[in-house]
Amino acid sequence: MDILAPYLMFLGDVHDQLAAKTATGVVHWRKDDCIGQVRFEDCHADLRLPDMTIAEGAQAGARTLVIGAVNPGGVLPDHWIDAIVEALEAGMDVASGLHQRLTSSSRIVETAERLDRKLFDVRHADGTFPTGKGTKRSGKRLLTVGTDCSVGKMYTSLAIHAEMQKRAMAADFRATGQTGILIVGSGVSIDAVISDFISGATETLSPTADPDHWDVVEGQGSLFHPSFAGVTIGLIHGSQPDALVMCHEPTRTKMRNVEHPIPDLQACIDLHVRAATLTNPDARCIGVAVNTSALDEAAARKCLEDIEKQTGLPTVDPVRTGVVRLVDALS
Amino acid sequence: MDILAPYLMFLGDVHDQLAAKTATGVVHWRKDDCIGQVRFEDCHADLRLPDMTIAEGAQAGARTLVIGAVNPGGVLPDHWIDAIVEALEAGMDVASGLHQRLTSSSRIVETAERLDRKLFDVRHADGTFPTGKGTKRSGKRLLTVGTDCSVGKMYTSLAIHAEMQKRAMAADFRATGQTGILIVGSGVSIDAVISDFISGATETLSPTADPDHWDVVEGQGSLFHPSFAGVTIGLIHGSQPDALVMCHEPTRTKMRNVEHPIPDLQACIDLHVRAATLTNPDARCIGVAVNTSALDEAAARKCLEDIEKQTGLPTVDPVRTGVVRLVDALS
Repeated sequence: MDILAPYLMFLGDVHDQLAAKTATGVVHWRKDDCIGQVRFEDCHADLRLPDMTIAEGAQAGARTLVIGAVNPGGVLPDHWIDAIVEALEAGMDVASGLHQRLTSSSRIVETAERLDRKLFDVRHADGTFPTGKGTKRSGKRLLTVGTDCSVGKMYTSLAIHAEMQKRAMAADFRATGQTGILIVGSGVSIDAVISDFISGATETLSPTADPDHWDVVEGQGSLFHPSFAGVTIGLIHGSQPDALVMCHEPTRTKMRNVEHPIPDLQACIDLHVRAATLTNPDARCIGVAVNTSALDEAAARKCLEDIEKQTGLPTVDPVRTGVVRLVDALS
Repeated sequence: MDILAPYLMFLGDVHDQLAAKTATGVVHWRKDDCIGQVRFEDCHADLRLPDMTIAEGAQAGARTLVIGAVNPGGVLPDHWIDAIVEALEAGMDVASGLHQRLTSSSRIVETAERLDRKLFDVRHADGTFPTGKGTKRSGKRLLTVGTDCSVGKMYTSLAIHAEMQKRAMAADFRATGQTGILIVGSGVSIDAVISDFISGATETLSPTADPDHWDVVEGQGSLFHPSFAGVTIGLIHGSQPDALVMCHEPTRTKMRNVEHPIPDLQACIDLHVRAATLTNPDARCIGVAVNTSALDEAAARKCLEDIEKQTGLPTVDPVRTGVVRLVDALS
């Protein structure tokens, strides 16, 4: 998978800003590569990019139309297909984060085949993977883990990767979810992999590298989440992390979409580190990344201090304080 | 999925007895329902069933042709297709444990559709499942876990289920692998489920039941296996077991197909119980099932005694000693 920039961001007629969450993430991290947005008349989201038609986007140099909009059920609405076909005709590839595949439309498939354009259904994992071997590979790896889903693992990973780049460290961000894949143009949607191959797909995603090269692997789920712990442990075993960063949202009381409470932070760190030692005996947690967006400045500072005292680990909010201290902790 | 007995067992021209492993398991547990075997001239496996042609099997009342043979790559050989089509024509459904789907042959698909026969590709999980919720369900559940793959989880589960039936306990065996599915005629090949839905598929497989009903859920993999721990933890969280039985092969030094050592038995019990408490705080390990087939009688007795002393748990070999003590431990 190699999604080419620049991107023309397609929102269609999504009903609210939340439905453009994927696109918003892409624009945040790839601002310079997102040259415009395509919105229908009744679109209620805005990426603060120049509005363009498909033709204008093509003229401006867009290589890929990115469907970064989410709608109920993840379906591909019939009335979006004209625009997608037009983009293919205008010379673009198309990448979609919807559940329903681009390839479910015969018009899209036929047009792409005729013109030799690429279609990327980034929520799906079409590759075949080997089973994981757990053999230690060269290169260093950092994996974000969490006390729940949606606590900032992708953001934290990207922020750490950006900080590493700033320091001229050899580093790659390894995307494991649809937004991350659209941001870097490659990756594996790990929760869409057949369960026998979770750790194997992760090994493929983060191959042998130079001894001082860092792969920053985007984490998913939590070992304490009753829906998704299988994905999490496969990611842990496959990425054999040297460093774990625990991500946490301090105001949440229940885990996402289930009735289970947020686990104790230290217990959560301990269990993730323990799982990681199976494929990397030297695995350790090097810090905590807290999403304090629901707190005011004073409460946020207090929260970070408390967690730092409690865990004895560098504790940051990637948005509020940055991740300098996490990258410092790697050396 | 509801695979109807009696079964006509198809071996084709497999090269050795090991290639008939799945079929052997089915015959062991469903002897009365396996009415014959179909073998080509150069078949080197034997299920010790009457040899029959497809026509003879149909005449004897077979409802399903079971492809219980495994070959390199799990492919469906072209020269097996005639026999499969003949079975469909003769009134049978067809169930296959091969990786390559029956539905990959247009002749098979067309014949089945025309005659309204069912095709079961039991290695695949075609159903859509919800994500797991982890909410406590009524009914009791036992899950087999292990220090490795292929240490006797299916056999132990089936033996426990048989012992429960002997005692007139309300109980179902819940199959999670191809052989188990062919044995009971239903189940979910859990390692073929998309990774986001492992625990959800397990919840579907073992639904709410009467308070004193036992589901005996066939385990897979191990939390210590770097290839398959994701499958294992999803099974644990989804089955929310009241009782775990740890399965173990005492002569193995490395886990199957990887370089990792067999974990310490007590550490393995502790980690599996800990994982299980996420969805069932009362989960406990009620015993150990040891596959001592590689040991002589004296060494086997000594091994069981040592493990019983070490763990403080009833320790049996399901083949050598039976599982009476494990079922006793449930009350």
